[in-house]
Parts: sequence; structure tokens; C-alpha cells
Amino acid sequence: MEKFFIEPIGFIKTPFKSKAEAPRQTIYSKGAKGKIKILDKYLEGIKGIEKYKYLMLIFYFHKSKNYHLLEMPPKSNEVRGVFTTRSPNRPNSLGFSVVKLLKAGPDYLKVSNVDMLDGTPIIDIKPYISDLDKK
Amino acid sequence: MEKFFIEPIGFIKTPFKSKAEAPRQTIYSKGAKGKIKILDKYLEGIKGIEKYKYLMLIFYFHKSKNYHLLEMPPKSNEVRGVFTTRSPNRPNSLGFSVVKLLKAGPDYLKVSNVDMLDGTPIIDIKPYISDLDKK
Repeated sequence: MEKFFIEPIGFIKTPFKSKAEAPRQTIYSKGAKGKIKILDKYLEGIKGIEKYKYLMLIFYFHKSKNYHLLEMPPKSNEVRGVFTTRSPNRPNSLGFSVVKLLKAGPDYLKVSNVDMLDGTPIIDIKPYISDLDKK
Repeated sequence: MEKFFIEPIGFIKTPFKSKAEAPRQTIYSKGAKGKIKILDKYLEGIKGIEKYKYLMLIFYFHKSKNYHLLEMPPKSNEVRGVFTTRSPNRPNSLGFSVVKLLKAGPDYLKVSNVDMLDGTPIIDIKPYISDLDKK
């Protein structure tokens, strides 16, 4: 197990065109809406998804280039390891957010509470299940 | 944005040597314990992690080879898209679990509620923050 490939299953449109505009987390998104366009080859994979209220998205921080293992998070005065943060600048550049599903179309998903940049590649979608995922 | 590489930041030891032994989800793990060995080059990244009670792990389903976009989940009689399931057989083969942090060592993390196979590559660790992640 050294390196392996991953590739997008779709891309999300959001109102956030730059890092300065994007909220730091979904809870700061003020309900911002997004639309995930699923790539044709993966369309069957969303069959039945309309019954879920929340979805977990794993996405790729496509605008992040470098990371530091130690960093000073916003509103903090303490140097911390990158794995104690949600920073987009991290090894493997993967992001995670739970969004609310508003509408499932034939080849798209309308969602709210998005915090990612416009054009972000979506790597995986999993149903959020409160009994499993809430702590 | 076509394909990109990701690589492990560490590996987890768990009691589950085969798919038949592994619980389907963390809530069925009966508190099973695991030990994440962080690779030397990423060690600084866990600095300060001991203050978190729960961690989100993104990991690689290294034993999964094929997937079907449509599948029949266990205990179901309905064909569903793979993105409505937590199946390990999925595009990009990424798994997600929230585990409890028991102890942070210099180069390892002892955790409980693990559901992954022994030797699973860990791709990312993020703090689970109830206010952000609970729905």
C-alpha cells in the first residue's frame, strides 16, 4: 500500500468563488445551497438517495497546494498538528462535510449547508445516519 | 481534475483479520479497540490531539476490489445505488468512521469502536466536533 488513485464522481456548484468567500464550516454557511452534478458513469449510484435527509460528502480541496504539519488555527494562539484541525491544507487534501439533501434529480443533487468552493470535486457520497454517526 | 494520488498517513491494527469478522459499522463493534500507527513523516500532525474525545477517520478499503453501482444491501430487498450505502465496495474505496480516542502516544493513537480490517491504511484524521458534525 503505497499510493493509489482516486477520481471525482461529480462536481459541486456553490456560491463561493474564492477562499475568502467560503465559510470555514457548514454551520457558518447560513444555509448556502449547492448543486452536485454526478458524472454520467456514476449516475446509477444515487438511485434511492432521495429518502435520506443528510449526506456525508468526501471532497477534494482542489485549490489547496501546500500544507504544514504544524499550524496555528484561526482564532487560536496555539500551534497544533494538522490532524487536530479541519484545515483544507492537509496531507491528501480531503474534506468532509455533512450537507442537507433538498432534491435528488436524475443527474444532480441539490443540497444546502455547503461550505466548499465552487467547482469542488466530489469523491464520495454516503448517507448520514444519525444512529451511526452522532456522538 | 481527473485523477490524483493519495497515500496513507498511517495504518490501524484491529482485531478483525477477515471481512467475515469485521463489524458492519462502528456501533456493532462492541467497543473493539484499535491502534493507529502514524508514519514517521506525519508524526507532528497529531500534536495536541489528546484533547479530542472522538476522531473522524477516512480510510482506504484495501481489500475491496470491485464495486457495482447498484446493489442489494444486507437485510434489504431493494436494489439501491452504492452512494446510498456504506458498502466497502464503492468508487474510490474510501471509508469513514468516527472512533473514540483512548490514548495518544508519541507515534500512535489508541482508539475504540473500530470497524475496519486489521492493516487498513488511514488516509486522514480530523477531530469530530459535535456542534459541527451532529445532525
